[in-house]
Amino acid sequence: MIALFTDFGWADPYVGQVHAVLRAAAPSVPVIDLFHAVAPFNVQAAAYLLPAYARSLPPGTVFVCVVDPEVGSARPAVTVRADQHWFVGPDNGLFVPLARRAQSLEVWQIEWRPAQLSATFHGRDLFAPAAAALARGARLSGARTRLQCEPAWPEDLARIVHIDRYGNAITGLRACALAATEMTVRGRSLPRAHHFDEHRPGTLFWYENSSGLAEIAATRASAAALLGLALNDEVTLR
Amino acid sequence: MIALFTDFGWADPYVGQVHAVLRAAAPSVPVIDLFHAVAPFNVQAAAYLLPAYARSLPPGTVFVCVVDPEVGSARPAVTVRADQHWFVGPDNGLFVPLARRAQSLEVWQIEWRPAQLSATFHGRDLFAPAAAALARGARLSGARTRLQCEPAWPEDLARIVHIDRYGNAITGLRACALAATEMTVRGRSLPRAHHFDEHRPGTLFWYENSSGLAEIAATRASAAALLGLALNDEVTLR
Amino acid sequence: MIALFTDFGWADPYVGQVHAVLRAAAPSVPVIDLFHAVAPFNVQAAAYLLPAYARSLPPGTVFVCVVDPEVGSARPAVTVRADQHWFVGPDNGLFVPLARRAQSLEVWQIEWRPAQLSATFHGRDLFAPAAAALARGARLSGARTRLQCEPAWPEDLARIVHIDRYGNAITGLRACALAATEMTVRGRSLPRAHHFDEHRPGTLFWYENSSGLAEIAATRASAAALLGLALNDEVTLR
Repeated sequence: MIALFTDFGWADPYVGQVHAVLRAAAPSVPVIDLFHAVAPFNVQAAAYLLPAYARSLPPGTVFVCVVDPEVGSARPAVTVRADQHWFVGPDNGLFVPLARRAQSLEVWQIEWRPAQLSATFHGRDLFAPAAAALARGARLSGARTRLQCEPAWPEDLARIVHIDRYGNAITGLRACALAATEMTVRGRSLPRAHHFDEHRPGTLFWYENSSGLAEIAATRASAAALLGLALNDEVTLR
Repeated sequence: MIALFTDFGWADPYVGQVHAVLRAAAPSVPVIDLFHAVAPFNVQAAAYLLPAYARSLPPGTVFVCVVDPEVGSARPAVTVRADQHWFVGPDNGLFVPLARRAQSLEVWQIEWRPAQLSATFHGRDLFAPAAAALARGARLSGARTRLQCEPAWPEDLARIVHIDRYGNAITGLRACALAATEMTVRGRSLPRAHHFDEHRPGTLFWYENSSGLAEIAATRASAAALLGLALNDEVTLR
Repeated sequence: MIALFTDFGWADPYVGQVHAVLRAAAPSVPVIDLFHAVAPFNVQAAAYLLPAYARSLPPGTVFVCVVDPEVGSARPAVTVRADQHWFVGPDNGLFVPLARRAQSLEVWQIEWRPAQLSATFHGRDLFAPAAAALARGARLSGARTRLQCEPAWPEDLARIVHIDRYGNAITGLRACALAATEMTVRGRSLPRAHHFDEHRPGTLFWYENSSGLAEIAATRASAAALLGLALNDEVTLR
């Protein structure tokens, strides 16, 4: 299985163009649109979402990861094997939390280049063909390496990394690591809950979401609207 | 064929996570994203859209229906067989208009539970695997039952249940049942038309849409913008 | 391969209903959602995007093209063979730039009509089954013809035809035809660049995008927001 994880959104031809390449190069491999809603250019937010969203996919899944504001520059392209999953994408920090948490980790440079490589869409021209090759069981040429870009980011990120359609605000904190019962955001303390329907409509809380991340929510209401939350807002725990 | 009908939208990982489960559990069954734009938590609007959007799909289609604000609470999970179609989802009113209109109807509790069941994403963890089993021809364990949640909703719903990308406002009224020629919304009376191109640009009218519902539209313009329409607005006929 | 190119967006059942028809009629043919974000009713913008987005798809691809504000009226339905690709859709100008640029061109009327043809959704009821038949290798009945609707549009369109998720503004100008190095839009002159990462964040420029069109962009910022750009804005070159 190939899974796509990008900041492409759905209102452009980019997702479709990647699918067309994958379909031609690996016709029998199913392709899943896992997540295309990374905030544009927000490599850090993406980096903390990726391991959470990747974990439920089957062993052997190849992830095409494209949050790539430096495309066309000299930033390296890599293949990462982290435990049971494969990842292809830019070496720009996107794989750092994933790599740190992996029990086993291997990284290769992608040295292969297609005959036609656009300056600005390596997702379509480089990463999709590379993922198709991996999914078919081929080896890509490229030396073993380590991630070149290793920003000094924290183990978990105490910020809002995504706001979903319901107005739930997802943080970069793994809930299983949290002993805390109270989360504070924008000066407001929120208790911990288990699911959406424990309280009266409009009640605010945080909980462990279905991908294992700490998430701020409200019963049948938008927590983001009630609290005025925005991407990158800090949260604190106690 | 499996068809998805949800309030997930497209800007989150939820649709993709459901696809990943279905692909692993029923690799040879095609999956259609029929509708993910139910307004969040709006079970009633969804309930009147579902039979209209389901009717054009082939006999045997299994619908995964997730508009489920009470997920994690004790609300039952059911399988519904209504005429030629199968439906899995929460017993929260979502299947009420569909069930009332069915020539033949059977309902079963879904008693099966997966090894890992999140508190807040039964669409992925319970309904998708259940649908995959049905689509493969398996029987789910579970007693015959009837719908437990039966709100006193009208036969057809004289409200706006969805506003589409063009600004057309779809009502919960089946057009074939309507002798009326005029519809009133927000104090404005609209004549009946047959298609979008009968009148000058900007002309407002209502018509029977391609799913059989009465819909307010305008020629090459947004009826919702021209009339200030919102979800749940009432309409009257005469 | 079948590719969809429409103004349906993603927040309605229209894409899914077309997929359901294609899946039933041509189960073994992959379907790609190439582009559903044509501005509603904007046939001209769509007409200049179509050849750019079609060019990277494999020979033999059948495109279902639906930007069809006159659906239900007498506007003809056509099959177009342009070089290696097939197209089905309304004869309303949508295929004009594509046809002009084709080395080889054949056009047929689509005379076939399904048993059930809605007045307002020929994408689902007429064009999708016609495309499925072509993709299966069938011939559609219908006389050879030429495009009936031929507006006096320019060879390339010096206007913004799409604004993407990153705030990049795509024009209807093929970049390979441009000797110019400066583009002016909303009174502002922009230099030509090669990719997004040549300059400091916020720098405005234009470049040849990955589909061959001239596009206005900014380094890690939204050119549309910085310049207040809107669809149909004129650009000039020198």
